[in-house]
Amino acid sequence: MSETALISSEALPRGFQFAAVKAGIKPSGKADFAVAVADAGTSAHPIGPTAGTMGTPGASAAAMFTANRVQAAPITVGRRHLERSRGRVRVVAVNAGNANCATGAVGITACEQVSKAAAETFGCEGHEVFPSSTGIIGVPLPWEKLVAALPEVRKELAADVEGFARFAQAILTTDTRAKVAHDRFEVDGKTVRVAGVCKGAGMIHPRMEPAASGLHATMLVYLFTDAVVEPEVLDGFLRDAVEVSFNRISIDGDTSTNDTVLLLASGASGVRIGEGGEKFAGALTSVCTSLAKQIVADGEGVTHVVELVIDGAPSDADALTVAKSIAHSMLVKTAWAGADPNWGRLMAAVGYSGVAIDPEKIAIWFGELPICVNGGRAPEYDEEAAHAYLQKREYSIRIALGVGEGRCRFWTSDLTAEYVRINAEYST
Amino acid sequence: MSETALISSEALPRGFQFAAVKAGIKPSGKADFAVAVADAGTSAHPIGPTAGTMGTPGASAAAMFTANRVQAAPITVGRRHLERSRGRVRVVAVNAGNANCATGAVGITACEQVSKAAAETFGCEGHEVFPSSTGIIGVPLPWEKLVAALPEVRKELAADVEGFARFAQAILTTDTRAKVAHDRFEVDGKTVRVAGVCKGAGMIHPRMEPAASGLHATMLVYLFTDAVVEPEVLDGFLRDAVEVSFNRISIDGDTSTNDTVLLLASGASGVRIGEGGEKFAGALTSVCTSLAKQIVADGEGVTHVVELVIDGAPSDADALTVAKSIAHSMLVKTAWAGADPNWGRLMAAVGYSGVAIDPEKIAIWFGELPICVNGGRAPEYDEEAAHAYLQKREYSIRIALGVGEGRCRFWTSDLTAEYVRINAEYST
Repeated sequence: MSETALISSEALPRGFQFAAVKAGIKPSGKADFAVAVADAGTSAHPIGPTAGTMGTPGASAAAMFTANRVQAAPITVGRRHLERSRGRVRVVAVNAGNANCATGAVGITACEQVSKAAAETFGCEGHEVFPSSTGIIGVPLPWEKLVAALPEVRKELAADVEGFARFAQAILTTDTRAKVAHDRFEVDGKTVRVAGVCKGAGMIHPRMEPAASGLHATMLVYLFTDAVVEPEVLDGFLRDAVEVSFNRISIDGDTSTNDTVLLLASGASGVRIGEGGEKFAGALTSVCTSLAKQIVADGEGVTHVVELVIDGAPSDADALTVAKSIAHSMLVKTAWAGADPNWGRLMAAVGYSGVAIDPEKIAIWFGELPICVNGGRAPEYDEEAAHAYLQKREYSIRIALGVGEGRCRFWTSDLTAEYVRINAEYST
Repeated sequence: MSETALISSEALPRGFQFAAVKAGIKPSGKADFAVAVADAGTSAHPIGPTAGTMGTPGASAAAMFTANRVQAAPITVGRRHLERSRGRVRVVAVNAGNANCATGAVGITACEQVSKAAAETFGCEGHEVFPSSTGIIGVPLPWEKLVAALPEVRKELAADVEGFARFAQAILTTDTRAKVAHDRFEVDGKTVRVAGVCKGAGMIHPRMEPAASGLHATMLVYLFTDAVVEPEVLDGFLRDAVEVSFNRISIDGDTSTNDTVLLLASGASGVRIGEGGEKFAGALTSVCTSLAKQIVADGEGVTHVVELVIDGAPSDADALTVAKSIAHSMLVKTAWAGADPNWGRLMAAVGYSGVAIDPEKIAIWFGELPICVNGGRAPEYDEEAAHAYLQKREYSIRIALGVGEGRCRFWTSDLTAEYVRINAEYST
């Protein structure tokens, strides 16, 4: 698996075309409308309830959306379309620069207009279009600009790495770089490819729920595979992979109204994957984990990426609660920004997490360095060494609670003056 | 009631003496050891279980401590002393510069040594001494320095405004100014006085629990009155006042391991206050609310103090949950720092609070300015006016959820680059 922003032609999942154009939504004038189109479908992947009836089944699809109760219009519409198409998608239409959130009925109409126009352009039904938006909240989406850009999108579409790279670039907002991950494996001499792109940067604390339940975020993730997978099977793979990747990161603790993870399976590899397919699960989890960590690394103003390993908690859920309490502590995050080994702030955040801990059983390590034992300063504590360790760009902190078997791994970042500058800037 | 840092001789509660000296705990060399001594007791306030038996009942006392499960040694010891003395205190001994937290058994011993020495100095029992500490966590408290300073404390003690002011100054850490509030009322021609001092600045999100339950913070509050009040009655007044004041503020969402609110009643006014005493409750609440707001106003790096008024929530508890979700959102707080009327961030924070809201019923006002109605931008929305309003140092934001009768008032602050600078500085 590669974490670079590049992808080779061999690694690119078959069965999809990509494009990105300048629709005029981003004030910067950069490309802001990214589109992926799944092949109409061939006998190589005659699956799903609509197979054979329309001739244009597109890709199998599974999606997860933010748990925020305030949801952007594309979340509402995307969920509705997936239900109506019974988990099949032909077109993914993503705009950056405007989140189309808190925009009321007008926002829903905007989504439907874009979907309708895209369906006409690419020869499918409106509910086979999956819309996404990211950007400012509360400002009506100028959907006419997206519709007007569709002819250019059709012209640009290509099943090549350049198209994929342009797609990866166009969905970005305050991100500083495109985020791509990919993996592949062989089954009976045939190659199955999994690749994904995402954007993040701010308002990052995804709490993703299956499409069937309720909410949305500003993390957008698009995963593509050429495996043959039924939509409901795909859904199970996606839930498992998201739980240990995107649901294990936080930059600022703000769960967005637009967070979306979409996984499409074109079937073009001809390799059918059933429930429990370990190789597929491994490749998907690997891609998701890489993308999740890339999001943290490219977070707004981030200068340190911190892996938290919590163990000895009463339960796994408790371990996650402790990790989030630490990851959301402004005092912990500012100490990290200064490479300050102020472990008392970690203790405080563990203490107010609400988890039934015993302070006198807590032990802390920065990498291999013992920091705290039995709730007090470790005898071997070496402040200079701790300070030096925390100056690394990426490091690991382990907190052993000593009361149970619960554990988790979580990735978060420091809080810098640059984060404040980016988000305090009054831009409009 | 005055919010200035000064207090007149007429407003100073009778029955207490105050002092503050330089014990050498603060690296700055400033006064760091504050002591208050309640008069030994006279026939004017023969109350409490020990009245008449020892001749030195001191003051009635009620305390609340942080809900953090990691607690500083003085919290453990203070709670133990109050139990043993059945709610009576002769001496309050506060050091700033070292929190005596995460210091294990050594920390408890340090507290006991200071208490023992103070008891000898002022002629009372060790458990009639109430210790407090604030400052860095995880570093052993040099208690010998406090013991060595006691003779000077005794020399300095005075029942005057200068002593009170020195006490208020010595308990500060990163605070920029002393915080004092006071109120008084008359009963049958006799004056009852209530006055308080506090420190705050960072790690401020008090969640105070009665002394009988579990936890601790870096907000320290000392309240004094010369009313005659039984300890258990005093406790009821304190709980009610704290709930609508200190438990309604947050600067950074970090609940400290040392938070303490102590209320002492000397009885020197000769006016007995029983349960439900409205004038006393009013004066106490007024003093606590003033101090709570002063803490927010003097928070680390704070440039805006924001009053949140949440109404229409399913319950009062839900309204508080929504207020805290907003108050702890880094994106909301950084927008405030930039006077950015980005109300979408408020919507997102309401949405991920977990409270059962209906986005389409939400309305938002900045002061009198309509910002959002039915979950969308208000027709009268005037961005320039909103931006200008948010440039005020103190302002009010009302969020009407429109689903129930629950409400609350909460005070919080913005998040500035200066807060990051203060807390990212590696000082040791």
